[in-house]
Amino acid sequence: MTPETIDQLRTPALLVESGVFDHNLATMDKVLPGARLRPHVKAFKSTAIARRLAADGHRGFCAATVAEVEGMVAAGMGDDLLLANETLQAERLGQLSDKAEITVAIDSDQTLDAAISGGVRSVIVDVEVGLPRCGCSVDEAPRLADRARAAGLMVMGVMGYEGHLMMVRDPQDKAAQVEACMATLLSAHERVGGDIVSGGGTGTFAANKWVTEIQAGSYTLMDTDYDKLGLPFQKALTVLTTVISVSKKGWLVVDGGLKAFAMDHGNPSWTDGKVLFCSDEHTTLAMPEGGSYAVGDKIRLFPAHVDPTVAKHQQMWLVEDDQIRDCWDIDLRHW
Amino acid sequence: MTPETIDQLRTPALLVESGVFDHNLATMDKVLPGARLRPHVKAFKSTAIARRLAADGHRGFCAATVAEVEGMVAAGMGDDLLLANETLQAERLGQLSDKAEITVAIDSDQTLDAAISGGVRSVIVDVEVGLPRCGCSVDEAPRLADRARAAGLMVMGVMGYEGHLMMVRDPQDKAAQVEACMATLLSAHERVGGDIVSGGGTGTFAANKWVTEIQAGSYTLMDTDYDKLGLPFQKALTVLTTVISVSKKGWLVVDGGLKAFAMDHGNPSWTDGKVLFCSDEHTTLAMPEGGSYAVGDKIRLFPAHVDPTVAKHQQMWLVEDDQIRDCWDIDLRHW
Repeated sequence: MTPETIDQLRTPALLVESGVFDHNLATMDKVLPGARLRPHVKAFKSTAIARRLAADGHRGFCAATVAEVEGMVAAGMGDDLLLANETLQAERLGQLSDKAEITVAIDSDQTLDAAISGGVRSVIVDVEVGLPRCGCSVDEAPRLADRARAAGLMVMGVMGYEGHLMMVRDPQDKAAQVEACMATLLSAHERVGGDIVSGGGTGTFAANKWVTEIQAGSYTLMDTDYDKLGLPFQKALTVLTTVISVSKKGWLVVDGGLKAFAMDHGNPSWTDGKVLFCSDEHTTLAMPEGGSYAVGDKIRLFPAHVDPTVAKHQQMWLVEDDQIRDCWDIDLRHW
Repeated sequence: MTPETIDQLRTPALLVESGVFDHNLATMDKVLPGARLRPHVKAFKSTAIARRLAADGHRGFCAATVAEVEGMVAAGMGDDLLLANETLQAERLGQLSDKAEITVAIDSDQTLDAAISGGVRSVIVDVEVGLPRCGCSVDEAPRLADRARAAGLMVMGVMGYEGHLMMVRDPQDKAAQVEACMATLLSAHERVGGDIVSGGGTGTFAANKWVTEIQAGSYTLMDTDYDKLGLPFQKALTVLTTVISVSKKGWLVVDGGLKAFAMDHGNPSWTDGKVLFCSDEHTTLAMPEGGSYAVGDKIRLFPAHVDPTVAKHQQMWLVEDDQIRDCWDIDLRHW
């Protein structure tokens, strides 16, 4: 039987508040319509959400794993996929060449070799712009592009992720730092060519005015960490839990913990009070002053980091308050 | 094709080093043979490991979720299962009554009512012994036991989890604190009755001499957090990753991150050098002095917390160095 209200759900369960989700998508569409946004499926890992974004006019997507690309192709959304990450498993992408248009990031001879031998037809040169992670130097970029073209591959352009700037609070400071990073990326682009300059994320979607497309996904669902930035998006994602124990000593316990919440940005948050600590399958909350919570009550907690929280669950329930409107499989998990 | 060596695995991948795993099981068996240990499946979430423990003589298991109990019954290991946690979904347990012997923890009238109406035949009274989580007071325990018996349920005894003492370093200090907690549990047991006094964990497996059975699971795989305690168990679990990018600026990047490692106890650890930070699908490592890592190299990282790390993966690969001996499904995930 399909559940109609959240009381009928097994907990812990991921909820997406429908009105907030719609608000987030509409808000982003005003700033970055159509191809200006390349939604990043790593944030929500669900082809149901991708399908909604495609219907809204965002036809190109990016991904962080080969499995996400495979899942998007299987769901019929392979028109323009960018694996915005390096991989040595490029043959898995090459096997999809007849069904999809897939571009993969490269930043070294080895990752380019993997793309060539794996049968990938299209690459983008990933340039390091300040985040100590993937990406080649500006000087390396044209050599890799030349090698790719010599091997018969299409070079779509460049990408560079200013991930270290996502959480910069001051808008002017952020704008200046993003500009400096993107100057690096644009100087690489001059030497690489191609139509695409791809970068950014939810934290710089407005500040990054230099790329041709922004890679963002977390804005759809949001979390307590991004919420600190004063972005125009609101928190749509919660984990629904059930109170399973109440102590007269001043705490209550719900049935979701370390296996239901990503903890890399800290504890989940509770609108009504303080979160004391998480265990594997429990979170202990302080009983609020005058609070009258009882065993069986439902409590929604906001995760501190959307992307790895979503990756722990099998489905999200789209809700309007307590009414269930849809169930979205989280079908882009694992590797 | 079944992979024969770890080079053939898609990364990130969970590895269990066979010799270390065997050592951990043998070491525990010397201290707590047979029914003295009730292995906790929440740590490894795999019926393959449970089957090995059952073959070694541990026939009773405990679990933290209803789904774990259901999975153990489906795998034919339902002879003596304890859901060492409160639940309001007791009807899911009751539906298994003709196939398995299942006891559920209760600490309130509501959780007892759920057990009664859900068709559960056997309960254990969960007593709070110092950890601010589930468990009733000593004074409440006999009343709940009487109510359960009056409703025709078997009361198996008491349980109490001294989880706040797992990480106490000094053995004498730990012994004294565990004794005080267990004095609370034993005073509840006097008033509740039943054959079972259940408690403990990997961190107190040797210090807790007052229970009839220890609930431990992490000792099988171990993590960097438990490893700080000087326990006689060794770290068997690693996440195998592939180097996907190397920077001349002094770092390298592997293809496992926040979605492959539990982060509640901090970053994973690397034997050869320093872990700088984790992103969703990357971990950036400092290039060691004189290090010559290249794109394509395999690197094993030790997770900081076993239980929620295992819960992120679909399978574990049992290995002897680089040779694959077995693949264990992580079939007790989710809720």
